[in-house]
Amino acid sequence: MSCQPSDPLQRQVAELLVVRASGHLDDQHRRYPQWELSNGDLQRLLNAGVGGVILLGGSAVELQQRTRKLQSWSDQQLLLCADVEEGVGQRFDGASWLVPPLALGRLHQIDPEQAITLAERYGYCTADQARRCGLNWVLGPVCDVNNNPANPVINVRAWGEEPTTAGALAAAFQRGLARGGVLGCAKHFPGHGDTASDSHLNLPVLPHSRERLEQVEFPPFRAAIAAGVDSVMTAHLLLPQLDPQQPATLSSVVLSDLLRGALGFNGLVVTDALVMEAITARHGPADAAVLAFEAGADLILMPADADAAISGISQAIAQGRIPIQRLHAALRRRREALARVQPSSPGLPLPTPAERELEQRLVTASLEQSFTAPIPPGEGINLIRIDAAWPCPALNGAAPALHLPQQHGFRSVVIHGQGVSPWQDDPEAPLALERLGDGPVLLQLFLRGNPFRGERDRQEPWRAAVQQLQRLDRLAGLIVYGSPYLWSELRSVLAPSIAAAFSPGQMPEAQRQLLSSLLQHPSDSLQSRDFTD
Amino acid sequence: MSCQPSDPLQRQVAELLVVRASGHLDDQHRRYPQWELSNGDLQRLLNAGVGGVILLGGSAVELQQRTRKLQSWSDQQLLLCADVEEGVGQRFDGASWLVPPLALGRLHQIDPEQAITLAERYGYCTADQARRCGLNWVLGPVCDVNNNPANPVINVRAWGEEPTTAGALAAAFQRGLARGGVLGCAKHFPGHGDTASDSHLNLPVLPHSRERLEQVEFPPFRAAIAAGVDSVMTAHLLLPQLDPQQPATLSSVVLSDLLRGALGFNGLVVTDALVMEAITARHGPADAAVLAFEAGADLILMPADADAAISGISQAIAQGRIPIQRLHAALRRRREALARVQPSSPGLPLPTPAERELEQRLVTASLEQSFTAPIPPGEGINLIRIDAAWPCPALNGAAPALHLPQQHGFRSVVIHGQGVSPWQDDPEAPLALERLGDGPVLLQLFLRGNPFRGERDRQEPWRAAVQQLQRLDRLAGLIVYGSPYLWSELRSVLAPSIAAAFSPGQMPEAQRQLLSSLLQHPSDSLQSRDFTD
Repeated sequence: MSCQPSDPLQRQVAELLVVRASGHLDDQHRRYPQWELSNGDLQRLLNAGVGGVILLGGSAVELQQRTRKLQSWSDQQLLLCADVEEGVGQRFDGASWLVPPLALGRLHQIDPEQAITLAERYGYCTADQARRCGLNWVLGPVCDVNNNPANPVINVRAWGEEPTTAGALAAAFQRGLARGGVLGCAKHFPGHGDTASDSHLNLPVLPHSRERLEQVEFPPFRAAIAAGVDSVMTAHLLLPQLDPQQPATLSSVVLSDLLRGALGFNGLVVTDALVMEAITARHGPADAAVLAFEAGADLILMPADADAAISGISQAIAQGRIPIQRLHAALRRRREALARVQPSSPGLPLPTPAERELEQRLVTASLEQSFTAPIPPGEGINLIRIDAAWPCPALNGAAPALHLPQQHGFRSVVIHGQGVSPWQDDPEAPLALERLGDGPVLLQLFLRGNPFRGERDRQEPWRAAVQQLQRLDRLAGLIVYGSPYLWSELRSVLAPSIAAAFSPGQMPEAQRQLLSSLLQHPSDSLQSRDFTD
Repeated sequence: MSCQPSDPLQRQVAELLVVRASGHLDDQHRRYPQWELSNGDLQRLLNAGVGGVILLGGSAVELQQRTRKLQSWSDQQLLLCADVEEGVGQRFDGASWLVPPLALGRLHQIDPEQAITLAERYGYCTADQARRCGLNWVLGPVCDVNNNPANPVINVRAWGEEPTTAGALAAAFQRGLARGGVLGCAKHFPGHGDTASDSHLNLPVLPHSRERLEQVEFPPFRAAIAAGVDSVMTAHLLLPQLDPQQPATLSSVVLSDLLRGALGFNGLVVTDALVMEAITARHGPADAAVLAFEAGADLILMPADADAAISGISQAIAQGRIPIQRLHAALRRRREALARVQPSSPGLPLPTPAERELEQRLVTASLEQSFTAPIPPGEGINLIRIDAAWPCPALNGAAPALHLPQQHGFRSVVIHGQGVSPWQDDPEAPLALERLGDGPVLLQLFLRGNPFRGERDRQEPWRAAVQQLQRLDRLAGLIVYGSPYLWSELRSVLAPSIAAAFSPGQMPEAQRQLLSSLLQHPSDSLQSRDFTD
């Protein structure tokens, strides 16, 4: 059932929705057609007053045209946002893809001043590129404290492992966003760092008391609010000590009493995506939106059914279940936020030289290396484990992780969740080496503990595999790109002579920097002849 | 050593060069930085009078901006070309990726009229999208007759396996290009279809006499010339019966006596890329360009060193080795060709509904299927072999080849040249099935015999693997995407009850059409929950 654009109440309610679209201009290129509305539906909903769009996928250059097109389908200024926590290039090809925030959290332990300066530049770079793409709202900073290494969903997305660091850097990032002229969003309130299950897939429970939340979870949110963050995103988490009935997203205790009351936040409260299993498993699409709005959310992100959400909230207001003042307050906050954004910039969204320099500096500042001698050239195996295969941003284009070892004589063998298994049933010798071939092995692990993969990647016996290769004197080197926890674990069993390195970032620049240093005298003369026909 | 833009002769010679650039706006995104000039070099060379650019890579939307930028660096109208033999989407994401020409060659055996109509629409669609991207020269039609199935470089790129079909369809494609307002290019003269080695890697020898060439190789070129093709590209082939010294690209016998004389071609003669090993192994960069121009080429494509090519040709003219009239004639042909192109179109380069319909119709017209019952749902293995992994256009986005079998219960295992080997050393049972898991196997082979891979893919024992799976009663189905020769070979050992199908095209549309038909009752309810954070 479609909402009724002629109904003035429904039109106002529609302003509060943020619906999901692909960054591609063309319906055919949607990567997730089940989540991403078609252009026909988008046009209809924007025409009916829907006030926001969250975008994902495609190139930054295409996104620039895409946001113009979307805006042309609406008669009001839209909120145009994306989950570009790690730079616009994290989601849109061609823009800057920056090291994960936790890289600066680690730097902050050693050099807090530099870390804060870089976090502020990180925010400004993201904001300025977002604005060049036509976005006006960055869904960051993550304000969760990653004090649980087993956390499958936050992990390196957090700015710190303890509250002070996370708060200082999240606030710096937010200052950068504000200077860059776009809105920010502190997430995921009241704190998603200490969960061991994934709220995309089910409803995690956080058993903490209000006192503990004040100590660990709240400080980064308070810091971001003090820095003027424009919006706060709710978490799909159950906190039985605060509200035994409803997850934070649907809880007036959490949103109204805590966030508005105790933390004094006056900006926009936005739900996390309502299409997530944690919500849809328990509530219908209208019900979920009504409960969130009733609890204190201003904006409804990715409702499972936009028409149902509009009708449901309108009905709840019309029937007096939710006072009309809530609607007016939410609309006012939305207007006030939009008044703060700078107009989108006509420049290309591709990195400027200064932004390139920042990308490189962030990589350099976050690397760790430990070896006595570089890896000599010769025949060997370049064994790569990637998080996901298609697409695989880390191996896009002329990835140094493939090309530099190949120029060195090492044949690439790439392992991923959809490939032939390299494992055999022997806990002491888990790698089936006869499937890989002979020679020394350079191991490059691109593993960061992404959402949706849950614990699957962690169950691979990389520790035993490293020990197996060392025992056979076949481990030429080890690089971990992503998880600092995996890096610590593997380094603990590594002989000091083995060339080893870590980068929190997986981007080509990190690969280039580490491999240039780990591989002895990279030969410039051996180049691929592959230039296509 | 840089060429001298102030020298009037060098400036005129520079017009004849076509240098290579990435389709990406940004230097950092070049996929082949060793072949693709940097923006700094491009600007310098275009400023020095270089008259053409060949582009590869990036998205169609980005290409539109890229061609404008390149044109802005020059004070003359540029030739802007690309190897978009199979639609602009073959090289630039987002535009139409069409079935390989040989698909229509096969259709021509059954329904010549429909094949010719479709080939003309194929050319028009390619031309119109090229023009919307700012290109004005399509490097097609391929006029080679693929009468040698072992040909590693032409294969499904040809319009036919015999001269009449190849000529009729190449001419139809050229008519489409002309109607679409861009230049075409018949290639690779005098005919590359009957070679069993790859001219990218070495110099193939074609032992044929002039009479035989007249019978088999020349007819498609004659047909394209009769259809008004604007340019002809030379082949890096040695034809000892015609010229025992020089390959066609550098042979005045082939270019002047045969192409200009016997075939009466008055348009532009362009070399194939001079950076190919077949040329660079024998000649320095200046030498190769001088020899090609001396032999009769008008345009020098991808010289190994643009400055050296300009200086070398200028010197040969200045010293009287090459008459200045040759230069004037080449410049005149270039001007005349450019006068025929229509201005670039402001529309988006993404497919229109009519172009979508053509994409689908070409797929539908080229499928083959043979089965008695569809594949029932259940646990099984979706074993996919791809030509190349990163990038892999066939598995981009929400590839039906992955997603439809997964929804059916089949777990994907993707094999590629850079993965863990699925093979074991047993000629009768070559697939190491314990590495793949249990259950029936749906085999999807994306193999078309690409260049650069030489015979490597063909050496995989797929015939024995199919027999092995059949013997074990584990072959649920077989789909070949690409090579009709592999399909014939495998079908010859296939039990008639096995669900099997073939598509010359590898695009998602072909996957969707075939799998929708081969898989029983695809369930719409099982959808991936993966919508990213």
